[in-house]
Amino acid sequence: MPRMLCSALPTTRPRSGPVTIEGWIHRRRQLAHVTFVVLRDRSGFAQVVVTDPQVREQVSGLPEETVVRVTGTALENAKAPGGIEIVDPAVHPLSAPAEPPPVELWRPGLGLTLPTALDHAAISWRHPTRQAVWQIAAASMSGFRRHLDGAGFTEVTTPKIVGQSTESGANVFALDYFGSTAYLAQSPQLYKQMLTGVFERVYEVGPVFRAEPHDTARHLAEYVSLDVEFGFIRDHRDVLARLRDVLAAMVDTIAEKAGAAVRTVGAELPFVPEQIPVIHFREALELVGAAPTEPDLAPEHERFLGQWAKSRFDSDFLAVEGYPAVKRPFYTHPQPSDPRWTNSFDLLFRGLELVTGGQRLHNHADYLEALAARGEDPAEYGPYLEAMRHGMPPHGGFAIGLERWVSRLIEADNIRQATLFPRDLHRLRP
Amino acid sequence: MPRMLCSALPTTRPRSGPVTIEGWIHRRRQLAHVTFVVLRDRSGFAQVVVTDPQVREQVSGLPEETVVRVTGTALENAKAPGGIEIVDPAVHPLSAPAEPPPVELWRPGLGLTLPTALDHAAISWRHPTRQAVWQIAAASMSGFRRHLDGAGFTEVTTPKIVGQSTESGANVFALDYFGSTAYLAQSPQLYKQMLTGVFERVYEVGPVFRAEPHDTARHLAEYVSLDVEFGFIRDHRDVLARLRDVLAAMVDTIAEKAGAAVRTVGAELPFVPEQIPVIHFREALELVGAAPTEPDLAPEHERFLGQWAKSRFDSDFLAVEGYPAVKRPFYTHPQPSDPRWTNSFDLLFRGLELVTGGQRLHNHADYLEALAARGEDPAEYGPYLEAMRHGMPPHGGFAIGLERWVSRLIEADNIRQATLFPRDLHRLRP
Repeated sequence: MPRMLCSALPTTRPRSGPVTIEGWIHRRRQLAHVTFVVLRDRSGFAQVVVTDPQVREQVSGLPEETVVRVTGTALENAKAPGGIEIVDPAVHPLSAPAEPPPVELWRPGLGLTLPTALDHAAISWRHPTRQAVWQIAAASMSGFRRHLDGAGFTEVTTPKIVGQSTESGANVFALDYFGSTAYLAQSPQLYKQMLTGVFERVYEVGPVFRAEPHDTARHLAEYVSLDVEFGFIRDHRDVLARLRDVLAAMVDTIAEKAGAAVRTVGAELPFVPEQIPVIHFREALELVGAAPTEPDLAPEHERFLGQWAKSRFDSDFLAVEGYPAVKRPFYTHPQPSDPRWTNSFDLLFRGLELVTGGQRLHNHADYLEALAARGEDPAEYGPYLEAMRHGMPPHGGFAIGLERWVSRLIEADNIRQATLFPRDLHRLRP
Repeated sequence: MPRMLCSALPTTRPRSGPVTIEGWIHRRRQLAHVTFVVLRDRSGFAQVVVTDPQVREQVSGLPEETVVRVTGTALENAKAPGGIEIVDPAVHPLSAPAEPPPVELWRPGLGLTLPTALDHAAISWRHPTRQAVWQIAAASMSGFRRHLDGAGFTEVTTPKIVGQSTESGANVFALDYFGSTAYLAQSPQLYKQMLTGVFERVYEVGPVFRAEPHDTARHLAEYVSLDVEFGFIRDHRDVLARLRDVLAAMVDTIAEKAGAAVRTVGAELPFVPEQIPVIHFREALELVGAAPTEPDLAPEHERFLGQWAKSRFDSDFLAVEGYPAVKRPFYTHPQPSDPRWTNSFDLLFRGLELVTGGQRLHNHADYLEALAARGEDPAEYGPYLEAMRHGMPPHGGFAIGLERWVSRLIEADNIRQATLFPRDLHRLRP
């Protein structure tokens, strides 16, 4: 008999008859005259009621997390989860009896400290509340691509081993590359710009690497970057409008594909307004009461601005545009009306920086000037500058950190809770 | 006036009227009394006819590859590409005048040696025949995901910086990780198996790294791996059946999304048979006339088998199952009837190995035995073995090399032709 998923049981017709399900023994309760088994598969749970003494004896040798096939009779029972349970089962083990896992996965909460959960990631991710977190992450990636695929973007894959550090020499991992020194890409920035010269509109979902020497709750040494770059824009406001649509598609896709997961973790999906409110960096400084010469916003400023956007615009999102040129990378397009500022923005999501984006320079001469002003050698940027020399459209883009997005969405207090196998200063395993 | 894509011009109604297009000056021909401009955008081409002396003068200062906006009148002309041309144009440059690129992109062929094309990748990929190759790659990734998303698979992202080399110490890149030694992942193998214990069915599209010391036409130091792993299988034949469906979806999606690209490069899409023909490794050796003790198939054997499958089954694909245990990694499931062989396969595509897949061990005790037989220390595999100890379903999977797939599809003689920015023994830039 072909396998049925647990989630399909409540909707089967007729509502009683023979069925086969397969999965993990999530919970086993051996009472005086009956054994209850809750089976877990990728779709959910099903209750199996064992009364036959021989099968009860067999099941007593199959601890929780053992993988089994159960063939039995589906029967309505208003008290069972989903209104259906399976009775008179035959149980066929598909794995050796499982050893007791380091955590009782059937309990409602994981009940582990974060380091212990991470040490046993392959097991702790099995917990329904943890699975739900990743389902939100997977749906986010799906929504990201769905929007961009529909808008004429081309998916690209760019090298993660690079011959130069992308934007600065700091926080970069070096490796021996057949006898010469190479680096792990801190972002696909230069490549996605070059490819905008080819395909106009590109995106990439891939790992980026930061040799982040600080042990904080919001930094990882390796994370997944959702990168977008596209040409034929007027300025950074076109980039922000695209970002808005991407985020809306991500939220919609989470609701569609991972709605149950959202309920499991008790998250509240944000409403993405048609127009994300924008404030100039200069005004943001004023608003938070910082000196007008401050070159950046501190985390407490961002929190304040997040609250302000919520109360003023009822928006979880706020874009701060015009960041000072001194704090932005060399490829950033200046604000035409006043080049102390730039056509770039940060997007705050619930008071935390989630996305950096903006318009880039696109003319070769402007790049030479920008590099000279920073004392950088244009020869280091040969192939990149070649693209600019031979006709590049006005363009811009942004990058969303997947784990940061998800952790903020679920209100996790540590980004590692949204990372399958996090990498940081102290963690290289599992 | 909002921008229109070149590809939309021939279908506009009414067939004449004002339009705006934006793109690169692909070709400029300045004749005695008229200048023809072919504009290239992400969708295709449009012909612009300039007769006004002032505009002709302006265009004479805008070399090929300059980015422009053209506003003019669309007019039927049976002789123009798509039956439409744009007359009486106003031309607005969007970039500085382009310097002459290292290759004349308007010529039908790229006409560069491969090393030169790769040195100037940011420019050479602009050539329509090169763009088409990548559009096939992008459609392949899209089709891969489309099938798996529809079949209950969860997309995962696994770390590329790992604490141990995945399967062997050979050909692995080492890096300094905050003072200790780490490695670049040669495959997500161990992680995708662990996550099969969580989500049952997982896939990943991501970079893998091989410190490949040989300079061949079919190896890269970094490539994109399309990885699949899933549980609740009977044996490797279930894995092969899934692979078949994935490949069929990839081919269908290429036809749907990149049909024009396939025509541009003159590729022939393969027909994926409902059942991919299978031959046992033992029989394959016999067929190619190799000694029965040979542990592997040589490239010329694979080519022979490819021709045999074509003539015998009219199939571009042939699966060779049962590879000798000595040549397969420790996690490979033995063939139950004879453990000298394994429940694994290689898929040959047009006589070239494209995919390796198979069933894995899933019981902890079997892993301990397999590692002991190879003299490997189980402690090295701690978190991985933990997953096996606490209940894993029978499972298996496969990995498709994206660049190898595309290069074989387009009959390229070098895999680098299907790689945006290839990495090899000698190439770390661009």
